[in-house]
Formats: sequence, C-alpha cells, structure tokens
Amino acid sequence: MDLQFHMDEIDAFIRQPDGSLFSWHERLRCYQHILYDTVKVNKPAMKFKCGDKEVCWEMGESILRKLETEGIVKEIFPLHDDVMRKQLVKSWALNWWDFTEQPIDEICSYFGMKIAIYFAFLGMYTRWLFFPAAFGLIVHLIDFGWLQFFVLPAFFVCLVTWAVLFFQFWKRKNSALLARWQVDQTPGAGRDYKAFELEWSLFQFPSDHIKKYGSEKITEKEAFQRDEWFGRFMRYRNDFVVILSIICLQLPFELAYAHFYAVIESDLLKFGLTVVYLLSIQYLTRIGGKIAVKLVNREASKNVEYRADSLVYKVFGLYFMQSYVGLFYHAVLHRNLMTLRRVLIQRLIFSEVVENLLENSIPYFKYKLKKFRAVRFKRKCDRGTVTGKLPRVEKEFLKPTYSASICEELEDGLFDDFLELALQFGMIMMFACAFPLAFTFAALNNITEIRTDALKLLVMLRRPVPRHDATIGAWLNIFQFLIVMSICTNCILLVCLYDREGEWNISPGLVAILVMEHALLLIKFGFSHFVPEVKFVAPGGYF
Amino acid sequence: MDLQFHMDEIDAFIRQPDGSLFSWHERLRCYQHILYDTVKVNKPAMKFKCGDKEVCWEMGESILRKLETEGIVKEIFPLHDDVMRKQLVKSWALNWWDFTEQPIDEICSYFGMKIAIYFAFLGMYTRWLFFPAAFGLIVHLIDFGWLQFFVLPAFFVCLVTWAVLFFQFWKRKNSALLARWQVDQTPGAGRDYKAFELEWSLFQFPSDHIKKYGSEKITEKEAFQRDEWFGRFMRYRNDFVVILSIICLQLPFELAYAHFYAVIESDLLKFGLTVVYLLSIQYLTRIGGKIAVKLVNREASKNVEYRADSLVYKVFGLYFMQSYVGLFYHAVLHRNLMTLRRVLIQRLIFSEVVENLLENSIPYFKYKLKKFRAVRFKRKCDRGTVTGKLPRVEKEFLKPTYSASICEELEDGLFDDFLELALQFGMIMMFACAFPLAFTFAALNNITEIRTDALKLLVMLRRPVPRHDATIGAWLNIFQFLIVMSICTNCILLVCLYDREGEWNISPGLVAILVMEHALLLIKFGFSHFVPEVKFVAPGGYF
Repeated sequence: MDLQFHMDEIDAFIRQPDGSLFSWHERLRCYQHILYDTVKVNKPAMKFKCGDKEVCWEMGESILRKLETEGIVKEIFPLHDDVMRKQLVKSWALNWWDFTEQPIDEICSYFGMKIAIYFAFLGMYTRWLFFPAAFGLIVHLIDFGWLQFFVLPAFFVCLVTWAVLFFQFWKRKNSALLARWQVDQTPGAGRDYKAFELEWSLFQFPSDHIKKYGSEKITEKEAFQRDEWFGRFMRYRNDFVVILSIICLQLPFELAYAHFYAVIESDLLKFGLTVVYLLSIQYLTRIGGKIAVKLVNREASKNVEYRADSLVYKVFGLYFMQSYVGLFYHAVLHRNLMTLRRVLIQRLIFSEVVENLLENSIPYFKYKLKKFRAVRFKRKCDRGTVTGKLPRVEKEFLKPTYSASICEELEDGLFDDFLELALQFGMIMMFACAFPLAFTFAALNNITEIRTDALKLLVMLRRPVPRHDATIGAWLNIFQFLIVMSICTNCILLVCLYDREGEWNISPGLVAILVMEHALLLIKFGFSHFVPEVKFVAPGGYF
Repeated sequence: MDLQFHMDEIDAFIRQPDGSLFSWHERLRCYQHILYDTVKVNKPAMKFKCGDKEVCWEMGESILRKLETEGIVKEIFPLHDDVMRKQLVKSWALNWWDFTEQPIDEICSYFGMKIAIYFAFLGMYTRWLFFPAAFGLIVHLIDFGWLQFFVLPAFFVCLVTWAVLFFQFWKRKNSALLARWQVDQTPGAGRDYKAFELEWSLFQFPSDHIKKYGSEKITEKEAFQRDEWFGRFMRYRNDFVVILSIICLQLPFELAYAHFYAVIESDLLKFGLTVVYLLSIQYLTRIGGKIAVKLVNREASKNVEYRADSLVYKVFGLYFMQSYVGLFYHAVLHRNLMTLRRVLIQRLIFSEVVENLLENSIPYFKYKLKKFRAVRFKRKCDRGTVTGKLPRVEKEFLKPTYSASICEELEDGLFDDFLELALQFGMIMMFACAFPLAFTFAALNNITEIRTDALKLLVMLRRPVPRHDATIGAWLNIFQFLIVMSICTNCILLVCLYDREGEWNISPGLVAILVMEHALLLIKFGFSHFVPEVKFVAPGGYF
C-alpha cells in the first residue's frame, strides 16, 4: 500500500543515527535510480555532438547508458563528501590516542554498514587482544620457577577460553549494532530461497491440495531436488579439485623450503631464502586465487552472496595451506621449536610491517604518478593557461578503487583486510605455545592497522560503494575453524615441547582409535556445514 | 489497520492444508475468547440458582470465571471431534501396514503443530533407523573372517555419519513442514527480547540521541546488563546445584548396583536386582525432577518457553546420569563387555516393552475404574431409570490428560515421549560398538511406538490443548550432544574391545595433554551455549 510522504510529518519516520532519513546505501540507490532512469519518452530522437562523435538518443533509451556505451561517460562513482571526510580524518583516522575507540556510527553513515562492521570487529578484536598480549608478555619475560612447567598449558587454556568468549561476545555486539542501526537481520535471507518457493506455491491454493498431492508434486519436487543436489555436488567437486591441486602443486614447494631452511647454516642465506619464498608464494597464491574465482564462476548457484562466501572459503583454504604447512613441518617433523619461533617472527614482521607498508604505499605512489601524468597532459593541452591544478572530480577519478586483489566482481577491499586479520589470528593462535609474544606483536600491529586502514579509506582511495551486509559472514566460520585447529596444533606443540627426546610412547592401536575419534569429531562439526539446514525464508512481499 | 472480512471474499485468504480458515490452535483461542469474555455490561446484578448455591453475576464480571470460582463449572477442556477422530484412528493409529507413513497434515490440523512435529520426527527417525538396524543385524550375525577386525570401527564411522546426516536432514524437513503449514519461524522469537527493547528505545527519537548518549544511557545499560548477567549466573548456580546433588546422591547408588551386579553369581538374583534398581530409580528420578522444577521456578527468566527448555536440560541431565553411569562402570572399570551387553538388553527390553505397556495400560485402567465408579454413582442417584450409560462429555471428563509426569505447568505429555526417544537414542548410540543389535530392537520398538502413541492420543486421553511450537526445540541440542558423547564413548569401548589384556600403554604426559585437548574442545562447543548469541528480535508490531 502506498502512503504519501509529507515533509512536515517527517518526525513520524524512523531515522538514521546521524539524523538523516535514508542510509548512505539507500541514498546511493536513489541517485542511481535517478541517473540511470532518465529515459526519453517522446518520439523524435535527439542528437548530441561531443567532439567528433555524434550520439543519437532514441525513445525508451537511458541517456546515461547510451553515453557509457559511447565512451563519453567513463565511469560513475560516488565522490567523497569533503566536510564529513575531514571531520572523520580528524576524529577517526588521526585520533591515535583513542587506541581502539572509533566513531562507529559516523563510519556507518559515511561508508555504509559493511565497512563499519569491519572496523567495529577490528576495534573489539584489538581491545580484547590486550589480555593475551599482556599474558604472553608475562609468560615470555618472567621465570616462574617450578611452576614454569604449568605456565604454557595454563596460557593455552586461557587463550582458547578467551577466543571462544571473544567470538560469542562479538556476535552479541554485532546484534546490538544492528539493533542500533535498526536493521532487520534475517539469517540467510535470500539463500536457499527456491526450496521454499516450491513448497509455498503448492499450498497457495488449498482447494487444489488433494489434486496436487499426487504424482505431479512428487516429480516437480524430485526435479527440483535433483537440481539442488547437483549444484551442491558440483561445488564439492570444485572444492575437491582446488584442494587436490593445492596439495600437488604447493606441498612439495613448501616442504622443500622448510627442508632447505633447516639445512642451510648461514643466517643471511636463511633470510634471503625466506624473502624469496614469501615473494614466490605471493605469486603462487595469485594463480590459486584465479583458479578459485573461475571455479566459483562455474558453480550452479546464482546468488551473489553465496558465491562470495564460497570464494572466501576456497581462497582462505589456499592461504591456510600456504601459510601454515611450512610451519607445521618445522614444528612436528623436525621438532625444532627454535627455528619455528624464528620463522614465526620473520613471518609476523614480514606480513605485518612490510605488507602493511606495501599495501598502503604502492597505491599511493601509483596515484601520485597518475596525477603527475594527468597534470603534465593537461598542461600540454592548455599550454600554460591553467596553473596545473586538477579539478576534484578528476583527482578522485585517478584514485584507486577499494577492491579485492583477487576478484573484483564478488568482493571489495574488505576481503583483503579480513584475510589479513584471519591469517594473523591463525598464526598467533595456532602457534601460541611456541611463541606467546606473538600476541603482543599482533596487538601493536592492530592498533596501527585501525588508523592506517582508516587513512587508506579516507585519503587514498575512492569512496567505496556501500554494501548492505549485516555481519562478517563467512569469516566468522573461518575464525571458529581456526580456534578448533589451534586446540589441536597447540596440543601437538605441547607434546613436542615436553617430550624433546621423543621418549613418550603410545600403542599403535590407541593412535588409530584417537585418529578415528578426531576424524569423527571433524565429521560431526564439519557436516553441519556441508548439509545446509534450510532456514525458513518467507517469499518476498508476503510479510 | 483493520480490514473488514467478507465471507464471499474468502478465497483471498490463505488457508490451512485441510481447507479451514484457522488452525486448531487459533480456533481454540477464539473459543476461549468467546467463552471467557462473556461479561455483564448493564447494571443490575443477576442472580442464578444452582442446587443450594446462589450465584450473583455483577457488572464487569465474566460469567465463566464466576462459575469456575463457585465450583459449578468444573473444567473447560476441548472435546474430541468424533468424525475426525474415527477417521484418524482408521488412517493413522490402526494403519499398521504403512510402517512409518503418517498423515502428518491431518494430525497437524487435528492436534496442532507441536504434536504433528513430534510424530513427523518419530516417523523420519524410525525410517532412517532401518539402515543402522540392518547394518547392526549384519554385523551381529555374519562372520567376516579376517575383516572382522575392521567391522566394528567401520560400523561406528557409518553410524556417526548417519546420525549427523539424519539431524541435518531433519532440520531441512522441519523447515519444509513449516513452509507447508505457512508458519513464520523466527528463531528464538520472544527470547532475549528485552536486550533490544532498550537499544531500540534509545534510538526511537534520534533528535535526543546526543543527549541520551551521555551518562544516562550508560547507567541504564549497566543496570540492565547487571540484571541479565545476574539471571544467567543464578541459572548456572542452579544447574551446578542439580549436578552436584546428582553426583552426591545418585552416583554411589549407581556404583553400588553396578558392583553388586558384577559380584552376584545367580542369574535370577541379577534379574531381580535389576528390577529393584529400575523401580527405585524411577522413584529417585521423580524426586530429582521435582527439585529441577523448583529450581526452574526460582529462575529470573519470565519467559515460559525459555523455562521449559531449561527444565528439559536439567531433567535430561538427571536421566542421563542415571541411565548411563552404571553402564559406563561396566564398560570402562570392569572391562566386562558381556555384562554390559546383558545389561543393555535388559534395559532395552525393560524400557521399551515394560514401560510402553505400563505407560499405556495404567491410564487406561484408571479411566475404566473411574468410569465404573461414575456409572455406579449415577445408578444410585437415578435409581435405575437410566441404563447406566454416561454422556460423552462426562466420559471425556473422566479421561486422563496428556501431561508430563514431572511438571504440568511447563510441559505437556510430549516431554515424556521425547525423553523416551532421547534416552533410547543415547543408549543405542553410546554403546553401539558393544551391542550393534540394539538398533534393530529400537527400530522395531519405534514402529510400534508410532501406533501406540497415536492410539493413546486418539482413544485414551482427552484431546490435548494445541501448542504453537514450530521445532523440537531443546531436544535437538540434546540429540546433538548425544552424538558427540557417543563418539567419545565408542572410542573408549573400542579400546576396551581391542585391548582385553590391558597391554596397550600410553605415557602419562600424553594422557594429560589428550585430556586437556578434549576439555578444550568441550569448552569450545559448550561455551557457544553458555554465552547466548543474541538473535535480533524486532519489537512486536513493528513489522
């Protein structure tokens, strides 16, 4: 039903936290609607001239789409709002003394929900990291005498409890944020929608119920189920291909690196090897990522969100193998904890300092170069009539976009940021017992990460197109998976630590049963993801 | 907004599967509204005479409530619809040859959703049980030669996969049923509602936002959080008291039984001991259940559904300790698998045959006795003028209600039925490797259970008041918990089976680390329940 909106009854409407009537996401939608739906309604075609080109605007055509296809309009993108941006730079990006405090409501109204949720998560994660950071520092620095024997297990137990509690409280916080922003969070809305459409349509006309209950319904249902399960089967085949290719291609490479690292004596050579390894892995990952994108694109599912999640799982699987297999090799096969610790430090420094620097500086210099060229080009054209300053829109046009390094259609730059966080979390959690100090490094890094990410978004990049995602999505499952993995790996590390001579023994029968138990627990908790529990989604427009 | 309902536009409304406009639940609500809201509106009080009593019906009073307090109306309860009932007896309760097939839609429209969901679950569970039943029979009967060594582990792995898949598919089936019955299944609706009410109210008037963001909001929030966490703390304290009292009271009793059973030689004495044990345990459980009910009633939470779930967890905890501790004692401490098997058979026969018989026959004979007395009383009063037949309403009034044996306010008879199913599932799953034939027993039992439960509801009991629950609720979590437990217990059983002489060894350090690992995995998956992830619930009437 349509109710007319009167400006003087504006108080009756629920508003955004910043007082405006629509969110940035909704406003952008409106702008797009206005821009793209400027359609010619009357008959005689209109003609424009632009340089040498002549454009003919015919009836029923959108002017903007016409201009885009002709190449006259290069791109449509949202501009930064300079007043708001400067305010945010001041209150958020350069506000170093607040440590983890951020003006989340303002971020939400400027960048949209998804980015605000990322920063809320990053802030809360960093705040919570202070506890294990301090604990790790104490464990590393203080000698507890005869209690030393129990310190690492105690640290480990506290850590797992901490991680579990953190994610539970994050879910609460996320719900509270959504309630504050007045968002309806229907879990899995839009997913597995089709399954119910069928069931609904069968019961829309109850008088036909008995008729439809016959063979017709069963064949329709069967065809639909065949489709659904075939799509799922395809997906798992793809996952299987990815995993197999990773194992075949990457594992020997990883193991060779780990082996060489253990064999080489000179520290300098070792460092060189690590640098070469890390750079080549970047290259390898990019290939793997492209394969993953291709596989995802061939999947049957048409839902963008679902495919984005699928991509997240696949790419994280790749990175997971890459980042940790070499470390496992050091830890378990060589029982060489000193080397493991050194490799961990190198990785942490490399990934956190170097990658942060590269990530932020390369786009900046690219932008500067582009700008310099543009100014020179302009000067040439105008022959010195202008002082060489670019107009604001052109400057923004030259800025890089906030996009994922792997697949621009499905994910934006948050993919890279979350990937970085997940890899860091995995590294510090899974090898916690080998190197408790890692938490302190991570906490320090994340404090700077908040501000550098903020600066990147506000100063260096184009304003991103807002997305309406209400949670951190697939990443939450990945973090949960990392906690479970970390329980197992830390137990292995503890065995290595306390049993340096390899004197502990265990009967092979017991080992077999233990392996079976772990495999079954994995099945129990893994299958819950394999066979989706269909959540009830009402067909659009009914409620 | 009110829209008028016209009978000739009835086609525009969505209807129940059976063609009626309202569900049985809704209709009963309407009847109750009509019955209880018959209120006198004009002034002079009316007087009735009934036997010796005189009732004065004053203005603003509900006639029915008045009559109830005066004791003239004894009880208001729904009657069976004889046509529908006879049809259901024919198509459902006595339709033995359909095995697990049931007319779920008809059950739903006659008994309401909750009971239909129970029978759908029971049917699907029994249907799925055929696979492990057949597998168990094969494992029990056929000798696989040298492969015999791998048969039990293979059986166990298949079983866990089966159980996990079953519950995932049950969730799908449940959603499909709800979609068919056109029910909106908002997860956890009505729970944790208060948490959001606060957040919402703070943002209802965005212009006051900045003012409220000050100290006032923080104190309000803090007070609220204190309340919330205090309630939760009370709940856990109660849980702790229950568990401790179980351990103190019951464990010695259980262990004494298990010990005597192992010591006594004569088979007859053993059987007698078991019967005494099982009867005394029934008594003990009833005490435990009453304690649990009292604890639940003292909890801060006011939500009925939430308290019902809390009761389910507590009572199941009690039964779990009771039913399995003695068995564990046989399995692990005595390494006596033959005794374990015999005890399992006794338990299965007792719980499935004897309890089923008692459960069904005692209320029936009670009803017969009551009816006999009523008829005799009537004959005395009327002095032989009537043939002694009771009117239908009086007959129904004498029938027992479908109520839980433990707490009538929070749960109905489904509580007992689900408890029976969960205990059976736990028994057959947790000791699967010791006694694979149990699945066959369970499958046979459940086929009869479907029909006897149907008969009980249709013939023996009063028509139950329908409930609007859309899932099997807390029981699903209990089943999931039993799967995880069964993985661990079966591993222990396998160790006992393959290592009869106790020759396998393991270093104490490894044992410590393994115990720690299992404890942490328990924390990981247990904490997810302890710290509830608040689901977003919109305040009523907004959507």
